[in-house]
Amino acid sequence: MYRGLTEDLARKTDSKILLAVIDGIGDVSIEELGGRTPLEAAETPELDRLVPESSLGMHIPVSTGITPGSGPAHLALFGSDPVAFEVGRGVLAALGMEFNLEYGDLAARINFCTVDDNGVITDRRAGRISTDKCTELVRLLSDIEIDGVETFVCPVKQHRACVVFRGEGLDDNIVDTDPGLTGEKPLSITGSGKSARVVKDFIMEAGKILHDRHPANFILLRGFSLYEQFPSMRDRFRLTPAVAALYPMYKGVARLVGMDVLKCEPEDLDGQARAVKNALESGNDFIFLHHKPADSAGEDGNVAAKIKAIEEFDRHFPSFLKLGFDVVCVTGDHSTPCSMKLHSWHPVPVLINGGPQRVGYSKGFSEREAHSGALGLFRAMELIPLLLASAGKLAKFGA
Amino acid sequence: MYRGLTEDLARKTDSKILLAVIDGIGDVSIEELGGRTPLEAAETPELDRLVPESSLGMHIPVSTGITPGSGPAHLALFGSDPVAFEVGRGVLAALGMEFNLEYGDLAARINFCTVDDNGVITDRRAGRISTDKCTELVRLLSDIEIDGVETFVCPVKQHRACVVFRGEGLDDNIVDTDPGLTGEKPLSITGSGKSARVVKDFIMEAGKILHDRHPANFILLRGFSLYEQFPSMRDRFRLTPAVAALYPMYKGVARLVGMDVLKCEPEDLDGQARAVKNALESGNDFIFLHHKPADSAGEDGNVAAKIKAIEEFDRHFPSFLKLGFDVVCVTGDHSTPCSMKLHSWHPVPVLINGGPQRVGYSKGFSEREAHSGALGLFRAMELIPLLLASAGKLAKFGA
Repeated sequence: MYRGLTEDLARKTDSKILLAVIDGIGDVSIEELGGRTPLEAAETPELDRLVPESSLGMHIPVSTGITPGSGPAHLALFGSDPVAFEVGRGVLAALGMEFNLEYGDLAARINFCTVDDNGVITDRRAGRISTDKCTELVRLLSDIEIDGVETFVCPVKQHRACVVFRGEGLDDNIVDTDPGLTGEKPLSITGSGKSARVVKDFIMEAGKILHDRHPANFILLRGFSLYEQFPSMRDRFRLTPAVAALYPMYKGVARLVGMDVLKCEPEDLDGQARAVKNALESGNDFIFLHHKPADSAGEDGNVAAKIKAIEEFDRHFPSFLKLGFDVVCVTGDHSTPCSMKLHSWHPVPVLINGGPQRVGYSKGFSEREAHSGALGLFRAMELIPLLLASAGKLAKFGA
Repeated sequence: MYRGLTEDLARKTDSKILLAVIDGIGDVSIEELGGRTPLEAAETPELDRLVPESSLGMHIPVSTGITPGSGPAHLALFGSDPVAFEVGRGVLAALGMEFNLEYGDLAARINFCTVDDNGVITDRRAGRISTDKCTELVRLLSDIEIDGVETFVCPVKQHRACVVFRGEGLDDNIVDTDPGLTGEKPLSITGSGKSARVVKDFIMEAGKILHDRHPANFILLRGFSLYEQFPSMRDRFRLTPAVAALYPMYKGVARLVGMDVLKCEPEDLDGQARAVKNALESGNDFIFLHHKPADSAGEDGNVAAKIKAIEEFDRHFPSFLKLGFDVVCVTGDHSTPCSMKLHSWHPVPVLINGGPQRVGYSKGFSEREAHSGALGLFRAMELIPLLLASAGKLAKFGA
């Protein structure tokens, strides 16, 4: 297991930490907002109320200029090195569907596609078949039996699904069969190892089953990845962590680092608050709270919706604060500028409240105010040591 | 070849990047300027005009407190690790004289010196002989023939020259023969390898030729370095880079990382602008523009000349901007404080214009305004990822 200074110095205490992630919260200057960002424009009285007693700063999700996917961005916030511990798309897809992966499982993304009589791809997405259709086809593929492994197929959405192979001795040295364009045949699986043989057999059987299922008459596989043991936050930091998220993907990444997955009912911020209350009562001392809509709005380029998503979080935030955390951190996993409709590399505001802090550097919770905050600019991976320290969970280094 | 995240994520696009380097631009507070720096005192309306729509910050050339030479400072700006890929003085000197180095060449700096009858050094610079005298002596040394290698000698300036040995199996494990002080004999070449033998022979022959050429009656050699293949910006970042510089040294360092060397006529900013225009038309998508006079003025301790050099650049800058870059960066390679008459370790202002940016943090282009800019303080090596990201040339990392 990976060990560093933080691991050596971490100690179990009664203090409780809340890490609230407003997904994609960061943005860039927007002309229609007079050069402000959605966070600057949003009315966030509850967050602003914390600011005079908080330290603010900016985190760099992975490294300067690098735009992270959700997997690496969250792993960094959980204290894992997202470059050393890269999570493959296949594993993320399976975790995202709450498939119960076991260590050593080989996972891949499936795209249903259309091929012509010569096996040449004419549509890489099979006309974006409905999710119902996808579920029906996945049921057929689930009957495939391959020697030496168990095979599981899950529907994801529209033409997307995922497959998991379980058995001894699998590896993920398998390149995508998706050539990335139409007018070509799917790429062949090369290699003579067990994984290559298993995947080849699966594709062949799938081809037989789907043969007369036009437009979804073949499959493309990509993002082959092995589900491997991740360093757990329990072992590394002596925390008992739990996740209150509504989207499967974030529960999945949290589970990867050993978090308990909380059941949130109803599936909204009220349900999340209720789940967090129960978790604290049953001994969890680190809560990862995830709020998705700001990222979705950013990806849609919808400035008003992004502002609304932030304000919605702000309105509900007191119901988390009153649960009695010793240290509260509010941040994002990455920026999702509305003008880009994409994740980006721009640093992300961070607020830490609780514990001994230098305060009074910032006047509100925004990119601009966080930029001049007492925490300065740091890597997302350094957040966990800051939170542990603020919560009195890190011993002194050296005499 | 070195590969990291940036290399994995870099993609070819049509966007064009200008990296304008005002050599030695950074400075420290100067009393006669009321505590301002030359950049703060200079009138730079064209650069200031970009500021409201740009992100500013400061770069640390190599690492905190380290003063770089021109070689490492530029390599870092080009995205190479200047510590891992150190360019020796011999190679830099040869590149600086536009000598056409080949991989495997062994290069060293020559200083003509004066020795007495016992071979003891009495002047390490031979009374700073004229460059004409140097050229005359170099012509004599060029006749030296050594078994197993070709030998090339180039004059540099005053008592300075350089030598290049070309042949199979050379290495650069050779220590300087210059003891660094007078009253001692030149240090002997030790070792039994081919390089040691070649260098010993060269020094012996040179001694014979120079014997009665007082004051330049002997040579000291230092900075032995092998010219090795450098990771190319083409391979690493999928760029098609070109350099518009007037001094051979900067063309040399740029060539080291695979840049096309543009012919600038006349040899001034007008000629550079013309060359850049042609380069963009012929497919270059990354231009390194180099402006030398600010550094020279700093090394002379001439505050007025440094201000003038910056203002001259500013006046000409629109002729580059109008060429249609998607991303424009203005910075320096290092600071050259007039009060020090030397390069220094102080961070260097950076401005990035174009692409999605956080703007409105800085009010002008200066050390002080860049310090509070949205980019913060970062390593020079991280500039390339920032520029690639701003120009849409970096894919997302992970799912």
